[in-house]
Amino acid sequence: MKILLTNDDGVQGLGMLKLAEYLKGKYDVTVVAPEKERSAISHAITLHKPLRLKKIKEEQNLKIFAVNGTPSDCIKLGVEVVLGRKPDMVVSGINNGLNLGTDILYSGTVSAAIEASLYGIPAIAVSLSETADIEDKRIYKFLESLIEIILKKGLPKDILLNVNIPDFQEGVKGIKATKLGKRIYIETFQKNYDPRGKEYYWMAGKISKIEEDEGTDIVSVKEGYISITPIHFDLTQYDMIKDLDSWSIKIE
Amino acid sequence: MKILLTNDDGVQGLGMLKLAEYLKGKYDVTVVAPEKERSAISHAITLHKPLRLKKIKEEQNLKIFAVNGTPSDCIKLGVEVVLGRKPDMVVSGINNGLNLGTDILYSGTVSAAIEASLYGIPAIAVSLSETADIEDKRIYKFLESLIEIILKKGLPKDILLNVNIPDFQEGVKGIKATKLGKRIYIETFQKNYDPRGKEYYWMAGKISKIEEDEGTDIVSVKEGYISITPIHFDLTQYDMIKDLDSWSIKIE
Repeated sequence: MKILLTNDDGVQGLGMLKLAEYLKGKYDVTVVAPEKERSAISHAITLHKPLRLKKIKEEQNLKIFAVNGTPSDCIKLGVEVVLGRKPDMVVSGINNGLNLGTDILYSGTVSAAIEASLYGIPAIAVSLSETADIEDKRIYKFLESLIEIILKKGLPKDILLNVNIPDFQEGVKGIKATKLGKRIYIETFQKNYDPRGKEYYWMAGKISKIEEDEGTDIVSVKEGYISITPIHFDLTQYDMIKDLDSWSIKIE
Repeated sequence: MKILLTNDDGVQGLGMLKLAEYLKGKYDVTVVAPEKERSAISHAITLHKPLRLKKIKEEQNLKIFAVNGTPSDCIKLGVEVVLGRKPDMVVSGINNGLNLGTDILYSGTVSAAIEASLYGIPAIAVSLSETADIEDKRIYKFLESLIEIILKKGLPKDILLNVNIPDFQEGVKGIKATKLGKRIYIETFQKNYDPRGKEYYWMAGKISKIEEDEGTDIVSVKEGYISITPIHFDLTQYDMIKDLDSWSIKIE
């Protein structure tokens, strides 16, 4: 079984490398990841400049490549150039930090998994709380089990899974299948002046409100559960199509 | 009424500037756009470096600013810094080239409208066929009518509109409310060698298959209709949540 790994923390990302080491005992693992951190890069792809593919490591069941592009570029290059075929599964992560709620719209980690799903490849995005212990064996045991199930039963067409793993300091409470929650931000840009007196703005991103809705990924992770959210990427809002037909929009 | 405009073609983008000129006769228009082209940048935001805001033009009912960031950065800065309040509407575009089907996942134009909708601002993304005549008055008449309706009746919460305008060479057939179609790509990276003999890959993006499904944006535009697709951004696939609960995933 071939598994393709990527992330948005960059090819040095510890979570991804540890997972690759763990999985290579069982699967043929190929890592194709951005050469540098590309978080908050969303689903961006590189059309207007050439991409470079650099082999960093090659050993039994583990090859690692760095790309001067985005996580979604890495999936495309990984499938079409490095492997030359679809892998049996794509894992994006383990990301350093959670990817919850509407924030996944900005996430390179989740977008790479969406890109894989566009190819028809079963895919998961995996994110871990920043405060969690990356050495915790339970993380890898859980992922091994999840990956095994997906390799056996597959995933429905055009659906991927967004997995968030909390800090297990007080024990693992279990796993919850969740919906995406909502975090509302006040970006509150910090305004400041550079050494030459020119003003600039730096995005701060303060959370202003969290919906405390039971059943969301945000609440479940906060309560100590692993959250698994089924994700689709059909952005059509079907209910409104009929309604729009009744609008009297003029053309000429 | 205040309207905020942005795009992903960059602040020099002709479609956006022409629309701004047209709308300033009726509304208070503010343009906040990337200083250079940022197409295929999706919903990326800039967290790790400072943003610069440069005023380019100020006249009656029309201010134009350039930002060294992405279209979504421009919405955030436009709302929170330039205007210091939510505008009555956001228009992202007019993009040079259509944004159809699953391709909107990569689109900076559509993502900027999603960003506006996250703020609760009524928003539309507007794209025009590359072969169309940007001077065609019917484009602006139509958009004026659409904007007027939205300013009057608003849009439902968390819904925006993705508008695609075809080349009107053979007359306007009308307007269709559509769903997103699917285009499947074979990226077929072009492999080549730079002057120093180092290999590189350039994304080519050949379309391999188009679903010819009636009612999609792709087919409607091809037939000569203006396409309006209602867009949502809740990526939860609700049907599968129950199913996931029955998976026996092991933790320890």
